[in-house]
Formats: sequence, structure tokens, C-alpha cells
Amino acid sequence: MPSKTLPVVQVKPLLKGSPEYEIRRAAVLEEFAAKVPDNLRLPIELINNPPKNVTGVPKECGLLTPEELAITEEYDATALASLIASKKLTAVAVASAFSKRAIIAHQLTGCLTEWFMDDAIEQAKRLDEHLQSTGKTIGPLHGVPFSVKEHLPLAGHYSSIGLYDTRVKDEEDCHIVAALRDAGAVFYCKTNQPQAIMHLDTSSSWGRTLNPHNIRLSAGGSSGGEAALLAMRGSVLGMGSDIAGSVRNPAAFCGIYGFKPTTCVVPRKGLIAGGAIAELNILTTAGPLCNSLRDMDLFMSVLLDSKPYLVDPTLVPMPWTGLKSLPQPKPLKIGVMMNDGAIVPQPPVIRALNWVIEKLKASNNFSIKTFEPYDVSKAINNVILAYWPDGGNGIKKHLAASGEPMLPLTQLVIKAAEGPELTPYQILAQHLERDQFRCDFARHWESQDVDFVLCPVFFGPACEHEMAFYPNYTAFWNYVDYPGGVVPTPIKAGKKGSEKYAADAPAPFSKDDEHVRQMWEEGDFEGAPVNLQIVARKYHDNNLFAALEKMQWVLELP
Amino acid sequence: MPSKTLPVVQVKPLLKGSPEYEIRRAAVLEEFAAKVPDNLRLPIELINNPPKNVTGVPKECGLLTPEELAITEEYDATALASLIASKKLTAVAVASAFSKRAIIAHQLTGCLTEWFMDDAIEQAKRLDEHLQSTGKTIGPLHGVPFSVKEHLPLAGHYSSIGLYDTRVKDEEDCHIVAALRDAGAVFYCKTNQPQAIMHLDTSSSWGRTLNPHNIRLSAGGSSGGEAALLAMRGSVLGMGSDIAGSVRNPAAFCGIYGFKPTTCVVPRKGLIAGGAIAELNILTTAGPLCNSLRDMDLFMSVLLDSKPYLVDPTLVPMPWTGLKSLPQPKPLKIGVMMNDGAIVPQPPVIRALNWVIEKLKASNNFSIKTFEPYDVSKAINNVILAYWPDGGNGIKKHLAASGEPMLPLTQLVIKAAEGPELTPYQILAQHLERDQFRCDFARHWESQDVDFVLCPVFFGPACEHEMAFYPNYTAFWNYVDYPGGVVPTPIKAGKKGSEKYAADAPAPFSKDDEHVRQMWEEGDFEGAPVNLQIVARKYHDNNLFAALEKMQWVLELP
Repeated sequence: MPSKTLPVVQVKPLLKGSPEYEIRRAAVLEEFAAKVPDNLRLPIELINNPPKNVTGVPKECGLLTPEELAITEEYDATALASLIASKKLTAVAVASAFSKRAIIAHQLTGCLTEWFMDDAIEQAKRLDEHLQSTGKTIGPLHGVPFSVKEHLPLAGHYSSIGLYDTRVKDEEDCHIVAALRDAGAVFYCKTNQPQAIMHLDTSSSWGRTLNPHNIRLSAGGSSGGEAALLAMRGSVLGMGSDIAGSVRNPAAFCGIYGFKPTTCVVPRKGLIAGGAIAELNILTTAGPLCNSLRDMDLFMSVLLDSKPYLVDPTLVPMPWTGLKSLPQPKPLKIGVMMNDGAIVPQPPVIRALNWVIEKLKASNNFSIKTFEPYDVSKAINNVILAYWPDGGNGIKKHLAASGEPMLPLTQLVIKAAEGPELTPYQILAQHLERDQFRCDFARHWESQDVDFVLCPVFFGPACEHEMAFYPNYTAFWNYVDYPGGVVPTPIKAGKKGSEKYAADAPAPFSKDDEHVRQMWEEGDFEGAPVNLQIVARKYHDNNLFAALEKMQWVLELP
Repeated sequence: MPSKTLPVVQVKPLLKGSPEYEIRRAAVLEEFAAKVPDNLRLPIELINNPPKNVTGVPKECGLLTPEELAITEEYDATALASLIASKKLTAVAVASAFSKRAIIAHQLTGCLTEWFMDDAIEQAKRLDEHLQSTGKTIGPLHGVPFSVKEHLPLAGHYSSIGLYDTRVKDEEDCHIVAALRDAGAVFYCKTNQPQAIMHLDTSSSWGRTLNPHNIRLSAGGSSGGEAALLAMRGSVLGMGSDIAGSVRNPAAFCGIYGFKPTTCVVPRKGLIAGGAIAELNILTTAGPLCNSLRDMDLFMSVLLDSKPYLVDPTLVPMPWTGLKSLPQPKPLKIGVMMNDGAIVPQPPVIRALNWVIEKLKASNNFSIKTFEPYDVSKAINNVILAYWPDGGNGIKKHLAASGEPMLPLTQLVIKAAEGPELTPYQILAQHLERDQFRCDFARHWESQDVDFVLCPVFFGPACEHEMAFYPNYTAFWNYVDYPGGVVPTPIKAGKKGSEKYAADAPAPFSKDDEHVRQMWEEGDFEGAPVNLQIVARKYHDNNLFAALEKMQWVLELP
């Protein structure tokens, strides 16, 4: 790596591409580094000898003032918006604090692809002036810093679809970014995503994103940069996208909040420049990552209150009531799916589920039932084919064009679909099978007589780098297109060897299940947080938030 | 035609297929005829010398009793349901009357593909017994006869996708038929549709459907059988499907009501056995055809009150308020589109628009504006390609397999798309262009500041057989996926030569427009009804009905 790039903690080398690719890649990294002033650089000794858990470094490193630490650590987005609106904080002070903390977070976790503090300060200044002169905010996010996953077009900045070859400077905001900007959001960075945006792990041409709680672990993906940045509190509210788990997985790996709405509810126009071939079969959706339940609600209300369907009729009108929804009939019927019948989750996940069950059972607001899994293997087999109607040839073309190396997880995710492009009738057959499965699963859900399903987010807590196999627990919900939120629990993985599968755990369901158990025996997951997922029927996003509101007090959710 | 088939009025010969095809086709027609008793057959002299307008024949022919005439002529479905529920009529009497009238209608207009009176009487008996023994109806359609377009699977009967080769006997109802059956509907016939279900005209292997108001004219399509049957009052409530205008067009040609909901609102699972290749780009939807506004509302409420989204999560939950919606802000802003900027409608259509405008302007419930058309040529060019991502090869394969001849309108509709099957990336490009157009059009709509658009349904009143070119006025709304209802006006086309284009009509916009004017000069459209179309924003189906409720009194709609 040439010396003009910004030193960032490395735990595992990146695969090399062609010499030309490496030169061009380095140039982008140098362009990034040129914007980072010396007074925001961490000592090289720290970069070379980082602690396992880097979440405390921003506080300890001395680069942030006490006020900047308070701004970035003591509030959620809802609170910051209120403090700015009431002139107790300026937008400039908040933008400055988060920009600084973000670049510190980046040096520790490799979470950013672009950083533009100067631009953010300019945006914030204009907002402060507006508030000063009119006495009014421009919207509910007035002055709230907002981090954005790389592929989401933001005017004046770069986006790519996770392939070097596709990097472009965008002239316009995509719809969702524009709606957030109109509400007063201040943009200051873009965040890392994996190759082709299709891994539950985050390693790209711009580097590898590390899990702040244990840098030997993955931050998850594909919105791994967002999740790591939020867990470092270098962002207070950010946005990823989810077609297989890409919001929920990294949120869970990093112990924060994440929500995947039903598709076609929040703005989606221009989400991926040039479109995504997977969307011929499975739609993606943007979703929030953040540090509190009410911030997820804020994100949804800001977007849906803007009536985005009036300018994009592909969106379903959904008046947002969220956490303020009218009470639902009591008790809420929650079906718990301890495992999906294909892979038994690793011990801390089971522990977290049991913890939640005990808490909820103690409240008369909930009726807890067992939710039987439904043909997960079929859903997963179908969905991994559905993502690549082009037989994976699009990716290969982009990689060949730039000399970017194909990462092992890319090889893995396209493997089942590799081959010639599908014909229209083959794609139609995939649609029919998908829609049949959706109807079959809906009948199954009704037969279980539940309102919500509580289940794992992943087969374990955060996994090791490049080990994010088996998207079962998230991609299933993309295949059926149900909204799902992930929330933190107080459960964390302990020291290596401190926790075993229960004696009465089911025998392995499959080779995948055996592999998961083996990874648990061999890996060190110390400090990895455990989140859980709660899912509602399609388009029942408001109901999901109403249920989360009820759970919030029982589970002591922030 | 062998003598064992049922004589039906012929005005223009069908194109012949291979000898084998003609033999197999005749066998199906003989099977049909075998079920028709002598006492329901019209005299062959009448079949050979029919009046131009055949709507009066059922009353005059003597085959129906005064009670049967009263049942079929004096009520809409809402009224019949009420009379049956209150035991003033039996379901058997109603099923019998409509079955008889339907087979008379078929002999005059070729509207049926299957007729099963015995089966209907059995269904009706069970319903009468249920009501007698429990004192309760099984649902809001208890005993209401319901006609069904051929392609919609109905257990125990045949369906096809308008190609001989695809005809199958269905073992199960499709979702929407099952939902109507659960509500008490009695099925007694299936109705004709054109080749490949893709013409705004109706001519199939089973014959040509004639317009009851003037048999030299087309009944429209693709739900032409439904529309002709309803105009003959051989049905009181029926169902077609609409991907380019197939509910709205024939409803307009035959002077009845028709409604195309937003897609994914009413049940769609199993609508077309084996799926439709067009649905890779443009979704189809079922919709009602009937003789009153409140019957369209009844159809919607029955289906949506059944919460179909619980068993088919591809459906958007839409609680139905329809005609009973809360009052909207007054005045309703109605944008009138006199022409689409591509084709000026023929004189009676302009006359009908002017009639409506005058009526609405006289009421303070409405604010009438001009709605500027938006790039219709682009929408139509795109949509006619979007219907055939297979390059039209699927149809050709089916025709070759059976020896069925390709009809001229089939040649016409696939012409622009003919060629190799599209690749996944070419289909993706079509999606992106479609969604861009949808957003652009939505912004245009907002810029016009209207709540609803009032416009023609077609470039003229009913056209001559095989002349249903230019789907502009309906397919545009499928391309953007906005809900649209068509309603009758008192306007009818006069005698040939009695009406000219206005002196101040715009000069022809295009060759198509010239062709439309030429067809007007050359054709005889005497007696053809003129309907108009009212359109709302996507998913604003309830609002559309609320507006129709307001218009109902002003326009004296039945």
C-alpha cells in the first residue's frame, strides 16, 4: 500500500487484483486520504496494535473534545433533532462532531468509502442560518447527520454497485436521499459495502470493514460499513439496503438496530444506478440502521409522511403510525422460531431467544407460542438462484473489465446459479414458484395463529471474516417479502470455549448445520453482540412497530 | 361446420386452421352443443337473418317466461342478492333464468365457451337449502349468478390462454373464483376471449363474439364474451381481466360498466394457468363487468372484505370503503383529457365528453380542468414491447402445435416485439424504463393538480370486427398501473354519415390518427354505445369510487 493512503487497521489481507487495478484502487484511496487532516489521524502504533474491541478508542484517543464526545455518545437522532431545533446545539457542532468521530471510526474499522466533513459543515451552516433567520426547522431531521451506504446515489459523490468498474460520480440524489435531505439530514460520509453488494460480510475495493466489538470478526454485510460506523457512534442514523439480509445482518453483528421494511414502501427509485439484475425476481429495499427504536420510527415517519407515492407510484401508500399506532388486541401472539429446521443457531443465539421468551412470558401483553419453520431449504435454494437470472455473468464481466479479483464469497453466492443467462420463460417459472411459495407460506403462518414471529437473525453472533455463509435467517424473509426488525439484547458471546451447544440440542439437520457447529468450536467470538429479529406479515410494518413498542419496556430496549 | 354444433349468428367467417385443428375444434363445439336442449334453441331462420341489434331478441323470442324476463331484466346483482336473501326469489329460479338467457345470448352473439346450467341449478339448490335450514346466507353473493371469462380457472371446467393448444380442465378454482364462490356466487358459464387473450376484439377457436347493439361491430376484447353476455342481460355480474384494456374496452363497446383495479389488489393467484410472459413486465388484474355502479362496488367489497392478502401476500391490503368512502374535499378536481395527443377520438366520443363536462360543470361538487396528455406515444411503444419479452415465440409455438391459424390482430400485436427472446438485462432495461416513465408521469399528474382524469376508453365507439387497433386509451393506464372505471353515457353513434369530425378538430397527429378518421368515414357504427373512462392515482381505487358516487347523481348513472 503506498504511503499516501490513510493507515487503517488490517486483520487479514485483501485479495490482490491485476497490477492496473491495484494502481487505480490506490489512487482512489489516496484521494480519500488527502481530505483527512493530520489532527484527525490516529497514531500509527495504535493502528498497528489495536485492541480487540475498538469501541472505546474514540473516547480514549484524545482527538475529540468533551463536547464532541457528549454529542456523539449521549443522544439518539430523535434527541439530537430536538436539541438542534431548540437551539441547544448547532447543526455545525453536531456535523463536526460526527464527521470527526466517523474518520476515527474508519481508521479502526475500515467503514467508509468517502468522507466529506467540509461539505457537511457547509450544509449544517445553511441549516443553522435558516433556523436563525426563520425560527423554523426545514424538517424533522433538521441538522441530523446521516450516513449513507455507498451504492445509494448522493449528489456530488461516488457510488458503485460494489464493483470497482461501476464507480461513478452521481449528479443527483436518489429519491430516498433527496427525501431525507428535504427533511434536513446532513450528509458527511458514504459507507463500505462488499463486492457486488451481495455478501453478509463487507470487503470491497476500498478495504475490509471490521466489527468494532471484536475486530477479528466480520461487521456483517452488505451494509457493514454503516453498522460498524454506528456501533462506533460515528453516525447516529444511517441507511443501508436489504435484499438478502443486508440491513439486518450487519445491524445484528454490530449490536445496533436495523429494519427492513416491506418492499415498495420507502422510496426506491434510483437506489442502484443501472438497476440490479436480482430485482427481476426479488426487490431490494432501503432501511435504517441506528441506535434506538424511536430512530427507526423517525426514519419511517419522515419518509412516509412525505407521501413519496405521489411522485413514485410504484410505492404503496402507507400512512405511518409506527410506534404511535393504536393499541392492538391483547395479548399479541408471538411465535418463536428457535431454529429454521435447517440450521440450529449457535449457543449465544439460543441463550438470547430464551432470555427474550422468559421476559415476554412474564408480561400479560404477550402470548408466546412455538412457530414451526416452513420449508426453509426450498426457499433458500430458490432465492439464491433468483438473485442471478444472468447466471452470474454480469459480475464476471465487471471484474474482467477492471482486473478486480473475484472474492471467495462472490464465488460462493453465484455458484448455484452459474451458467447461461435465463430465458424469459425460465424467469417466469421462477416468478411462479416464488409466488406459490409466498402463498403457501402465508397459509402456514395463518395456520400457526400468530401475529409476529421472533427468530434469530443469523446462525450465530457475528462470524469471522469471509465466513458469512448461509443467509437462511434473513434471506427467507426477503423471499417472502415480510418486514423484519432486528433489536439488540444484553447477550454477548463469551470467551472461546466458554459456551457449548446444549446437551438436548437437536442432532444436526444437515452438513450446513454441522459446519455451523464446527465454526462455533473453532472460532473466537468473544464480545460479539446478539440481536434478535421480529417479523410481521407483509405490509404490516406499522403493526410490527406497534409490537416493538410493547416489547420495548419489557426488554428494556434503548 | 358440422351439423352437430349449435348454430350461432355469423357475420364474418373465421380464418381456417389445419384440417386436424378444424376437426378437434369442431369436437369441442359439438360437446358444447350436446348440452343445449331443443327448447332453448332459437329458430335457424332467426340465426340466419338476425336483426342488426339483437338485444331485444331474448324478450321477443318466446323462450323465456315473464318471470325469467323479469329476473334477468329488472334487477342488478345487488338487488338480486337482496331478493334471494329475503326469500322473495330462489337461487334456483335466478340461476335458471340467467342460464337460459345466456344460451340465447350465445346463439345471437357467440359469447360463451362453456355453458353448464345443470351444474348451476345444483349449486343454487344447495344454497336455497342452506338458507332454508339455517336462515342465513353463506355470503353477500348468495345465489347471484356469476359469469367467468374463459382463462380464469373454475373447478371442473375448461380454461385456456386463448390458444387451442392450452385448453385444460381445471381441478381447482383460482383464488378469485374461490373467493366469489365462498361469498355465494353461482357459476353457470364461461365466456369467450380472443386468441392469446391479447386483442381488443374477441375471436377465438370457439367463435367470434358480436356486439349485441350492432352485430356488424366488435364486442371489444379481450373480455368480449363477458361484455356481450352482460349487454344481452344473460349475466348480471361477471369477471374479466385487464392488461391492456381487456375489461374496460369491451365494457365500453357494449355500453356496460367495467373496472380495472390497481394490480395486486384483488386476488390474482392462478389467474392464468402457467402464467403469462407479459407479466414479467406488466401485471394483469381481474375486474368486474356489470350493469350498475353499485355492482362494481359489490364485487370489490366482497373480495377485499375476505382479506385475500392473508393467504396471498403478493396482494396489497386495501380495506374497501368504495362508494361508502368518507366525503373527499370539495370540489373534486377532474382533469378532462379530450385526446391523448396521438389520436383524436371519433365524433361520438367527443360528443360524450362534452356532454359529461357540461353536466359536471353545472354541479359545485366538481372543478373541471383540462388534463394535458403525457407522452402517450412513448408509453404505447414501450408497452407493446413489454407484453412480449419472448419475442412472440411462445404464441407461435402454441399455434404450430395445434394447427391453429394466427389471426391478423395477433400478427399485429406481436409485430413490434417479434424476434429473439430478450436477455435478462434487456428485460431489466424495460423495467427501468417503465418505472422511470411511471415516476415521470406521476410528477406530470401532480403538476396538473387534479384528483381524477376523465378521458375516452377507445378512439371511437365500438369498431368493426378485427379493426380494434391502437390500444392507446386503455393500455396507457396499464403501463402506469392506475385504476380506471368505465361508465355508460346516453350517447350512441348515429346512422352512417350522420356525424362528422368538428370543423375545429385538431389536424391529424399521426398516420394512426388519419387511419382512425378514415375508419370513421367508412364504417357503420349505428347504435354503438359510448362509454367514458375515469382514472385515479395508483392504489386510489377507493377514492375513484368515492368520485363515481358523486358523479352518479349528476350523470344519472344506473
